[in-house]
Amino acid sequence: MKNFKIALAQFSPYIGNLERNTQKMIEQARQAKQDGADLIVFPELSMVGYPAEDLLLRPSLKKRTRDAFQALSEVKDIVMVFGFAHQTEQGQTYNAAAVIKDGEVLGVYNKQNLPNYGVFDEKRYFSAGQQHLIFEYCGHKFGVLICEDIWTLSTVQQLAQLNIDTVLVLNSSPYEVGKPQHRIQTLTKLAEQLNINIVYTNQVGGQDDLIFDGSSFVVSRNAELILKAPSFEENIYSVSFDHTKANFETSTITPELDTMAEIYQSLVMATRDYVQKSGFSGVILGLSGGIDSALTLAIAVDALGADKVQAVMMPYTYTAQISIEDASTQAKNLGIAFGVAEIHNIVNSFQQTLYPFFGNAPADSTEENLQARARGTLLMGLSNKFGNLVLSTGNKSELAVGYCTLYGDMVGGFAVLKDVYKTIVFELAKYRNSISEQPIIPERVITRPPSAELKAEQKDQDSLPSYDVLDGILYAYIEEDQSQDDIIGKGFDKAVVEKVIQMVDRNEYKRRQGAIGPRISSRAFSRERRYPIVNQWRAGK
Amino acid sequence: MKNFKIALAQFSPYIGNLERNTQKMIEQARQAKQDGADLIVFPELSMVGYPAEDLLLRPSLKKRTRDAFQALSEVKDIVMVFGFAHQTEQGQTYNAAAVIKDGEVLGVYNKQNLPNYGVFDEKRYFSAGQQHLIFEYCGHKFGVLICEDIWTLSTVQQLAQLNIDTVLVLNSSPYEVGKPQHRIQTLTKLAEQLNINIVYTNQVGGQDDLIFDGSSFVVSRNAELILKAPSFEENIYSVSFDHTKANFETSTITPELDTMAEIYQSLVMATRDYVQKSGFSGVILGLSGGIDSALTLAIAVDALGADKVQAVMMPYTYTAQISIEDASTQAKNLGIAFGVAEIHNIVNSFQQTLYPFFGNAPADSTEENLQARARGTLLMGLSNKFGNLVLSTGNKSELAVGYCTLYGDMVGGFAVLKDVYKTIVFELAKYRNSISEQPIIPERVITRPPSAELKAEQKDQDSLPSYDVLDGILYAYIEEDQSQDDIIGKGFDKAVVEKVIQMVDRNEYKRRQGAIGPRISSRAFSRERRYPIVNQWRAGK
Repeated sequence: MKNFKIALAQFSPYIGNLERNTQKMIEQARQAKQDGADLIVFPELSMVGYPAEDLLLRPSLKKRTRDAFQALSEVKDIVMVFGFAHQTEQGQTYNAAAVIKDGEVLGVYNKQNLPNYGVFDEKRYFSAGQQHLIFEYCGHKFGVLICEDIWTLSTVQQLAQLNIDTVLVLNSSPYEVGKPQHRIQTLTKLAEQLNINIVYTNQVGGQDDLIFDGSSFVVSRNAELILKAPSFEENIYSVSFDHTKANFETSTITPELDTMAEIYQSLVMATRDYVQKSGFSGVILGLSGGIDSALTLAIAVDALGADKVQAVMMPYTYTAQISIEDASTQAKNLGIAFGVAEIHNIVNSFQQTLYPFFGNAPADSTEENLQARARGTLLMGLSNKFGNLVLSTGNKSELAVGYCTLYGDMVGGFAVLKDVYKTIVFELAKYRNSISEQPIIPERVITRPPSAELKAEQKDQDSLPSYDVLDGILYAYIEEDQSQDDIIGKGFDKAVVEKVIQMVDRNEYKRRQGAIGPRISSRAFSRERRYPIVNQWRAGK
Repeated sequence: MKNFKIALAQFSPYIGNLERNTQKMIEQARQAKQDGADLIVFPELSMVGYPAEDLLLRPSLKKRTRDAFQALSEVKDIVMVFGFAHQTEQGQTYNAAAVIKDGEVLGVYNKQNLPNYGVFDEKRYFSAGQQHLIFEYCGHKFGVLICEDIWTLSTVQQLAQLNIDTVLVLNSSPYEVGKPQHRIQTLTKLAEQLNINIVYTNQVGGQDDLIFDGSSFVVSRNAELILKAPSFEENIYSVSFDHTKANFETSTITPELDTMAEIYQSLVMATRDYVQKSGFSGVILGLSGGIDSALTLAIAVDALGADKVQAVMMPYTYTAQISIEDASTQAKNLGIAFGVAEIHNIVNSFQQTLYPFFGNAPADSTEENLQARARGTLLMGLSNKFGNLVLSTGNKSELAVGYCTLYGDMVGGFAVLKDVYKTIVFELAKYRNSISEQPIIPERVITRPPSAELKAEQKDQDSLPSYDVLDGILYAYIEEDQSQDDIIGKGFDKAVVEKVIQMVDRNEYKRRQGAIGPRISSRAFSRERRYPIVNQWRAGK
């Protein structure tokens, strides 16, 4: 019996672009073949990309898929296992995997378990498969599963009972903090328990708010880790099977990332992919001297290179001198294009125009919002004129409680820190400084008390509890779905908890109009927390 | 055998507010009892409201539901049939109906068919029921179904085979143009075919982007229309059964609305409910002298009354004198608060501030967007200071092709015409003028060529095909999912079709950040058209 080599294509599809994805799959299959592979496995729905959402409902998908299969028949002498939307004559669509060789379809597997929770809506698009697929190749017996299937014990047990050696799992499994380790730990136990080798190939790349981390791996039936591919990198990895040892030979084992490194790299990749896959030439952002914009800038430069990043400082009466100094220091550190645009005249013109309406009404957050909206409009003007995407710089804590201005600091196409709590923003800034010889974010930006600088002597902590407390409450309410009473029971101050929860509930309308941003948590403000805007739930009751 | 009377509670729930909804259900049951009813039927999920979205996943829902059942036990001597989220000890949740009398639960029915397409996500929340529920009362045999069940022939057939006389159907069926008539036509045939009477009770009211029209009805097994309740009104309607005739006595038959009347009333109700259920004291909008803002203003005044509506005209160099005249005439016609705020100084201050960045770069849409954003910021300033909700005035044709400015004319919490094509905007304006003695929208607003007035001599038709052509292409592409080739095949110009489709595809990012607005079509830009932002589908291929 011939020993054999399996290539895992950790593939980054362009959503909806079947032609491009298929060409790329052909290139990767040929390269794998050249490197001696007998079989190459792509991720779930690699042909159309995941999640293609309602593009899956467009009538021309069937023809596009047929054309793509035709194109793949060019590839010779290697088995390809890939994901596609399988539309039947009876009008059903399956989330499927095809096994092809030399253009011949050897088998098709339809995903049996369709996730329809969290970020997933697969029952909107797909029917559930009913049958297993197994095939023999190089004297080895393979089964095929798709993503949710491998987490459904009854399904994997049924497959294992068909006496397969190795299951090829095609995945488009979205990232969240710690997920790469979690997958390996759980599936190593499963491999041993069911006596099967698991080849786990995952999509990589950012798609709108979702991050696919790759982190593909192979574990043997002896619970050995055979391969662990890097996270956040598109590439092909491979493992070789030795019949005499009846096992795979140990291949690349990428060291585990620290949590901050993992999050940081995930945001870098998400930002790069959003910008590049949308076709923008570069980005622009408002640099305030505060930590959120400082961290966003660092991520943008790491994602795109300094020549693709522009920053603008837009000072007003309440902007501290040290904010201007720190912003300009960081811009210099990073070597990016940096400009300053004072907003006094703009704010004055708004105030004068509004005076006949406002009269002597006392100043309130209205006047603060004018400053933020003047800045937002300037950024959008620069974006419109020169074609750079505006990155929005707000964090998850702010967005949760609405401590941000709609059409002001919320403007932008991509909100890099949208799913990052403020306490993690601090950690990420320190992490980023720790990996370069010179700190690129000025130390003072990290240590000074946070302020929106929208009125005199303002500090975030005048309006909000300390970020440690705020993030503790928010995490319990949002990520853990705890009730107000439960959270108070954990020792938080009752009045503070009530205020914070009320702010979260009342600010759904702001979040709904905010930019998308990369999901790194288990409960991002995006497609996975679907709350009504008109909502009288009232947590306290 | 006693003759009996059934009350249909065409009920408008407050989403998530179980206490309020339950109190209201108690009041309505008592009133129905007083009017002689023996049984009262509420809509689907009346207790928590539909759609409650991820509030259904909050752990405290179970306790809230239990408390609500407790409260309902106050009601005596009338059978109540109502919708609730039925959570079992085994951790499943059903979309259910309870039949109770004097606080005693006589039966629970779990919805068998869960829609998970279009605007519906029921498989995210609910398990499917497996069993029918029938009960006898007043010598009559009843079955219970919930919404999608009545459209699923096999389910209704099974129930009919249990020899029931009448099926009580609890619904939260969203409105779209023509849907009230469609339901009656289809279910009248079904009633006759299966020899059952159908009592169809529908939710009424606006909830975020969804409109529930009510339009409850009763049809007999002889295919007679027994009751047809008005659309867009919350009230209780009733029908009496006479055993001697073995039939219901004909009750109120509300005349059918013309299409424009139906749409207009739906938008009025949606606007009223959004404002009132969110707790705003009133609304403000920018009046431009154009038809979109004129129609939005008319709807706002019909929804809320003139004393709750403010309008501001914000002229600039390119604003025609007749625009100012027409805006002020309409404001006077309607008796609303009206102000004028020139934006020259604001636009100048933006241009001066941007000059060091722009240099002598030629003017383009950037400068047009500055005007729109100056206006958006003024409106938001007035909203922030006085607490009125900003109504956004854009229509579906504009939003489809991105002929609108993000953070400019798109600002606002509720976009009244979001799902109304421009050609229908004209029809609605004429309709509204036709129903009052004096036209409230100046005739010239309807007859002059549409213009955004963002540069000299600008007309919409400089950038877009005529609205007849544009809306024809958009309808085929959006509502009918036709491919580019199909649309060209219908006789539209190839270059125009390609341009329009490209504009639709490229502007998903704008739509994603826009305000919600009421859905009146079968494919609104909202929860039912879920397209990726980063999307390389390219319709032309």
